[in-house]
Amino acid sequence: MSVRDIEAYISSFTHRDWQESNESDGPIRFALVGLGWWTRDKAMPAIENSTFCETTVVVSSSAEKANTVAAEHESVEIGITYEEFHEDSAADAYDAVYICTPNARHLEFVESAAKNGKAILCEKPMEATVERAEHIVDTCNAADATAMIAYRMHTEPAVRRARNLIDAGAIGDPVHVHGDMSQSILGWGREQWRLDSDLVGYGASVMDLGIYSVNTTRFILTADPIAVQSMMRSDHEYFTDVPDEVAAFSVAFEGGVYATCTASQNATLNSQLRIVGTEGSLLLEPAFHMSSSLCVTVGNATMDIDTEQVDQMEEEFDYFADCLLTDREPYANPEHGFVDMRALAAVYEAAETGETVDI
Amino acid sequence: MSVRDIEAYISSFTHRDWQESNESDGPIRFALVGLGWWTRDKAMPAIENSTFCETTVVVSSSAEKANTVAAEHESVEIGITYEEFHEDSAADAYDAVYICTPNARHLEFVESAAKNGKAILCEKPMEATVERAEHIVDTCNAADATAMIAYRMHTEPAVRRARNLIDAGAIGDPVHVHGDMSQSILGWGREQWRLDSDLVGYGASVMDLGIYSVNTTRFILTADPIAVQSMMRSDHEYFTDVPDEVAAFSVAFEGGVYATCTASQNATLNSQLRIVGTEGSLLLEPAFHMSSSLCVTVGNATMDIDTEQVDQMEEEFDYFADCLLTDREPYANPEHGFVDMRALAAVYEAAETGETVDI
Repeated sequence: MSVRDIEAYISSFTHRDWQESNESDGPIRFALVGLGWWTRDKAMPAIENSTFCETTVVVSSSAEKANTVAAEHESVEIGITYEEFHEDSAADAYDAVYICTPNARHLEFVESAAKNGKAILCEKPMEATVERAEHIVDTCNAADATAMIAYRMHTEPAVRRARNLIDAGAIGDPVHVHGDMSQSILGWGREQWRLDSDLVGYGASVMDLGIYSVNTTRFILTADPIAVQSMMRSDHEYFTDVPDEVAAFSVAFEGGVYATCTASQNATLNSQLRIVGTEGSLLLEPAFHMSSSLCVTVGNATMDIDTEQVDQMEEEFDYFADCLLTDREPYANPEHGFVDMRALAAVYEAAETGETVDI
Repeated sequence: MSVRDIEAYISSFTHRDWQESNESDGPIRFALVGLGWWTRDKAMPAIENSTFCETTVVVSSSAEKANTVAAEHESVEIGITYEEFHEDSAADAYDAVYICTPNARHLEFVESAAKNGKAILCEKPMEATVERAEHIVDTCNAADATAMIAYRMHTEPAVRRARNLIDAGAIGDPVHVHGDMSQSILGWGREQWRLDSDLVGYGASVMDLGIYSVNTTRFILTADPIAVQSMMRSDHEYFTDVPDEVAAFSVAFEGGVYATCTASQNATLNSQLRIVGTEGSLLLEPAFHMSSSLCVTVGNATMDIDTEQVDQMEEEFDYFADCLLTDREPYANPEHGFVDMRALAAVYEAAETGETVDI
């Protein structure tokens, strides 16, 4: 595509091209499970600003924390404990759950929510292991629950525009991808669940950060991973329980595209996704840390693509609610998330064996 | 380092920090072996503009071509054939040779030049195979010849500044690297030596392009590769004789840094080298296609580092001549190039076996 064609194509897009509900529809009432900083600082403000969502129940391991958070937010009717949630307390007060606990505690809340006929928005990665993720898939299917894995990049406008442009052939055939998501979690101290293999699963960096490069590439290329290679190491004392203070891994996708990826929980804040094709390239940078910018290079011309700056969590919650309000299956259903879980497990296996692992 | 410290540090650098000769020294008289477009369009103008070099002899497979090119350039005393070169023709008319033939024809000219006591500047990769590269090392050592492998990035100011900054701790400890060099050679037609495994060696993309990511990372980190993983494929009909129309490979370096790299001879023109550390990151982009730009990110600040825009080939020739004039060993001696040859061979072996290959 020429620069002019790309500009015309981009300007034809609408914000929230996924939205089918009317603004007056809803709200979907949420129970938020797990009241860590992400839920309190990211999810709750996003829901408050959203079009279709409302927080009515908050769920914590601690009754005191649940009550405190409940008291701080006008829309919240009640704060309950994990045990009370499992005992179906306040089940009439919410339509859907948002599960934002440590990875290894997702399954139990999926099970309770599904049993109660609630819709489920579950943070990624789905669970700590492939086996437990498979239980989530089976549980949701058996209960016929509407469920979504919380991939906020899918409703980030820059990512959607990147996907549209690739699909329209703007950079020719995609050839290879570079993806990185890195940050430092040392400042959070040693006692955090991402460094505890019982809670995080296979590791700290690929599970939590590498998943962005894998899943966003999947989404943009509309192709699934078929094989991986990987190297990882942990030297810093904080990372003795997990193998991947830093990881470098390559993913072969259906169609022949290779993605080379890095992820580290002990590096400077950095994220980008670059897709190089036969006729041009796309760069998302920053990519994954709550805001995304897109630029496209074709020939000698590099264009910054103006996309709406959104609250990615607000878009994610409203997309999920929009699916519920119109009885649609979310794009990132549990089967979608399960493909990532198998890819992540393969990355850890490949690092351990030193061999290419087919997925 | 703070932004202010980095600025102060950068401003303390001088152009040609490697130069020890006086401008009036020289010239070193060169015989140029192999008169393809690179020699004629890149090397000859660079030498003409250089401080310490002069082209006095040109050597081609074709007597006619040698004579034509000789007639076109005032400084050139004579054009001779490959056979005449091997028979020591015009040996008094040059001090050093620049070997820019297909990879598999480097060794023979190294042997003739070494026999004649000439200094040797040999294009990279050194040769088509590890075994033949080892012959180059042995030949140069036996003759006590001053020899250099032609890594033009070593005298690119942006690369040298990147190396200095890493060394000074500007981005903390380096953690991981992303390197890409891609271009399309389809326009050059099917009959080119880079697509002929007898002439190019192990493959087309990693040998010719991937070497830039590997070697420049080595140079900037002052660390050698110790293990590699790799995936590659060839689908396009032009690439039936070589395995790597596109390649994705990871290199583990001494000290624990991982470099994830891509290379393709059938993609859009793209090159970058990004080094992410614990406290900041460096980006060379463009990196490898004849001009290089450097920027540094520390915290929230991203600085474009002003470096001299040079003719990379002119710098390379003058550096080599400067070494000869002051009787210094060039940095990229044959042993240095041989490390890359082993790494490249390992990349191809890793792709074939699907296993991590130690170097």
